[in-house]
Amino acid sequence: MRTVYVIGIGAGDPQHLTLQAVAAMNRVDVFFTIDKGEDKSDLARLRTELLDRHVTRSHRVVAAGDPERDRSAAPGRYEEAVVDWQERRESIYERMIADELDPDGCGAFLVWGDPAVYDGTLRILERIAGRGAVTFRVESIPGISSVQALAAQHRVALNRTGRPFAVTTGRRLAGEGLPAGIDDVVVMLDARNAFASLTDTDIDIYWGAYVGTADEVLVHGDLQQVKDEIVRIRAEWRERKGWIMDTYLLRRRDG
Amino acid sequence: MRTVYVIGIGAGDPQHLTLQAVAAMNRVDVFFTIDKGEDKSDLARLRTELLDRHVTRSHRVVAAGDPERDRSAAPGRYEEAVVDWQERRESIYERMIADELDPDGCGAFLVWGDPAVYDGTLRILERIAGRGAVTFRVESIPGISSVQALAAQHRVALNRTGRPFAVTTGRRLAGEGLPAGIDDVVVMLDARNAFASLTDTDIDIYWGAYVGTADEVLVHGDLQQVKDEIVRIRAEWRERKGWIMDTYLLRRRDG
Ligand SMILES: C[S@@+](CC[C@H](N)C(=O)[O-])C[C@H]1O[C@@H](n2cnc3c(N)ncnc32)[C@H](O)[C@@H]1O
Ligand SMILES: C[S@@+](CC[C@H](N)C(=O)[O-])C[C@H]1O[C@@H](n2cnc3c(N)ncnc32)[C@H](O)[C@@H]1O
Repeated sequence: MRTVYVIGIGAGDPQHLTLQAVAAMNRVDVFFTIDKGEDKSDLARLRTELLDRHVTRSHRVVAAGDPERDRSAAPGRYEEAVVDWQERRESIYERMIADELDPDGCGAFLVWGDPAVYDGTLRILERIAGRGAVTFRVESIPGISSVQALAAQHRVALNRTGRPFAVTTGRRLAGEGLPAGIDDVVVMLDARNAFASLTDTDIDIYWGAYVGTADEVLVHGDLQQVKDEIVRIRAEWRERKGWIMDTYLLRRRDG
Repeated sequence: MRTVYVIGIGAGDPQHLTLQAVAAMNRVDVFFTIDKGEDKSDLARLRTELLDRHVTRSHRVVAAGDPERDRSAAPGRYEEAVVDWQERRESIYERMIADELDPDGCGAFLVWGDPAVYDGTLRILERIAGRGAVTFRVESIPGISSVQALAAQHRVALNRTGRPFAVTTGRRLAGEGLPAGIDDVVVMLDARNAFASLTDTDIDIYWGAYVGTADEVLVHGDLQQVKDEIVRIRAEWRERKGWIMDTYLLRRRDG
């Protein structure tokens, strides 16, 4: 039977790679990539670097075009836009698996961070398997997520003793604030400075952009005191590189 | 200045180790360990195996006794018991850092999973640094958490598209149920089958014990249908090995 690996490659530092990921990469016949266009070329470069450095086995790299994603979707239609884009991805992935892998061949998607954290690949593969047109088994290889890389660089834990933490998106934070009753919240996928609209005066922020890469920027402090600085840094870097990748932990102070 | 690494070694599979962790381990003069007694000997064995296999540099291993932890604390006093235990740990760690490391020496704690996920080491080191008696800098190296290992083995993402997820403890789940408004919740540190007391009929569970090890057991299904099976398996394994390490994802079905 065909095997399709979904391999987490970490969140930007080539050294995030696990021994398990290296071993899996050396069982792969075909690496599938999605061409994300110019703006994400740093990510493509990391993938290429990892293949060059760690894969000794002969392999092919097959690239497909990424379906256009409607990033202008109105807040309420965000999920819809993502689902639509994922359906188009499904057809592309299905075709690649069917056409490029031998009946007992081994393919892989190298995904940013951890496949289980805000990444659609596992879900897409599950849906393709459900269609039944091509038979394969899936193996997921965990990777260091940007959530963990952020915490490590700030030298903090995500949770406080015996208490929960949550991971959410910028859209959710902007719409609903911090999840009820949870005082430690990591925010990803924030394109619009959702943190800056919070008026709470008892929150610390641990913010990081391009964490684990040469461009890493970290800011930590009382949210109200540092939020303008973060907004400014975000704008500067987005201008400089054309895109920004950032994540932050919001921690409500006790007492 | 002294450096103290907190290195995540993954959640049971020796292959979870990252290249960054291997590199850091090879800069260490002294590995500090806490003797957890017989019941956790599998964990100690993993640490020893990783040192033997990956550390080529000459090093020492210094073991200290773990302060007794009051596991019988009443539900409301759980945090207090943990804090007390951590304070006693602080003194032990402080002494080890001061006595065993040269002024520019490098020490390390190898921690299970990820140092940012339900692990007290970073907080303890921050507090020791705050006391000011011994000067050192801390480096945290992220590791694959049991949360991610669980998701990988079940081939699922932790979140659904655009939605949050939370990580909490068995005690919290037993006391408060699922966090309000969050439909994907990972539960750790559940010593008392908290999942079994949930009466919700719209929840799927992805459960795993000893994930990533040779003893791994996985169960997935409708919570009400599989909860008795999980309770039974937990009791059997706890009996067999003397201890159990398990984690689960609760996912509320839509619609
Ligand atoms: C589609 S999600 C993918 C997350 C990935 N699967 C992971 O585990 O980190 C993309 C989001 O991850 C976060 N992110 C990824 N890499 C990052 C990095 N190096 N520094 C800061 N944030 C990062 C940002 O919030 C970004 O919007
Ligand atoms: C003190 S916490 C440490 C968590 C660790 N820092 C991590 O990132 O996974 C211990 C809890 O982690 C979970 N755990 C750790 N290793 C596990 C494994 N291999 N399989 C299942 N659960 C595990 C269990 O819920 C256990 O009660």
